[in-house]
Amino acid sequence: MSVRLEVRKLTKEAFAPFGDVIETEGADVRLINGGTTERFHALAQAQTGGGAAIVSIFRGQPRSCPYSVTMMERHPLGSQAFYPLQNRRWLVVVAQDVDGRPGSPEVFLASGAQGVNYRANIWHHPLMALDDVSDFLVVDREGEGNNLEEFDYPNPFEINWSK
Amino acid sequence: MSVRLEVRKLTKEAFAPFGDVIETEGADVRLINGGTTERFHALAQAQTGGGAAIVSIFRGQPRSCPYSVTMMERHPLGSQAFYPLQNRRWLVVVAQDVDGRPGSPEVFLASGAQGVNYRANIWHHPLMALDDVSDFLVVDREGEGNNLEEFDYPNPFEINWSK
Repeated sequence: MSVRLEVRKLTKEAFAPFGDVIETEGADVRLINGGTTERFHALAQAQTGGGAAIVSIFRGQPRSCPYSVTMMERHPLGSQAFYPLQNRRWLVVVAQDVDGRPGSPEVFLASGAQGVNYRANIWHHPLMALDDVSDFLVVDREGEGNNLEEFDYPNPFEINWSK
Repeated sequence: MSVRLEVRKLTKEAFAPFGDVIETEGADVRLINGGTTERFHALAQAQTGGGAAIVSIFRGQPRSCPYSVTMMERHPLGSQAFYPLQNRRWLVVVAQDVDGRPGSPEVFLASGAQGVNYRANIWHHPLMALDDVSDFLVVDREGEGNNLEEFDYPNPFEINWSK
């Protein structure tokens, strides 16, 4: 018997407890390069905890619904940013920490023009592409130390959602 | 009378003196997230010179040919990475340093699935989108200190190229 999760639209306000939404909407815009370029500035900042910020590409298989959320992970030493490269919607699943464990997951539907940056130590589900195999530009941390913690929920949660 | 520049295909090898090419091809691939995600790992690393790595979006007007390269810039304190978000080709223009000034520009045609990371202090031309207004995810440095140097060429160079 799994608890069914609500899926909400991703907004800066709703996501604020977990990190940044990377999107042009509502951003600080600066005109640069002799007026040829708009710079939507500092939509996210990398936390690297003594390591380095690296750029990678993640290629995720699409998830299908109903989807069972059985585990979460977090990176104690660094933030992790994801931005979709094919303008394809995707799911962002995070949780507040409750005594060192993830609480009930919160699910956000991101558009293909929305990325996120999970702050260090924020519980989140591994990448959830939708609809098709999808690439994401990722900015996260490389360096010494254990930067991965995982938690298996004793009872799974269910995402059952379409459109 | 301007010197006409050759346009070359962007490859890791040709671009090595200037920085990294951010692309899945030829990358170190790791299977993560229970086999659901391929991680093309550490395609670039941010140099932040005591500052922070930030993520921004640049929206560039398209350039048209013939294009006159009249100036270059560099960022002494940090690297700067660009990745195209609409799978649209673009131009990368860089130069070796010659006694504190940019030498003759080198022009690379990047595909819509190729980004670059200019290393700190590498002379480059401001963003050159092609064909249409184009968005790029940008990872660069924010922090104290003067991180911008510009140079005007006494004689312009010309990029005259199509397809």
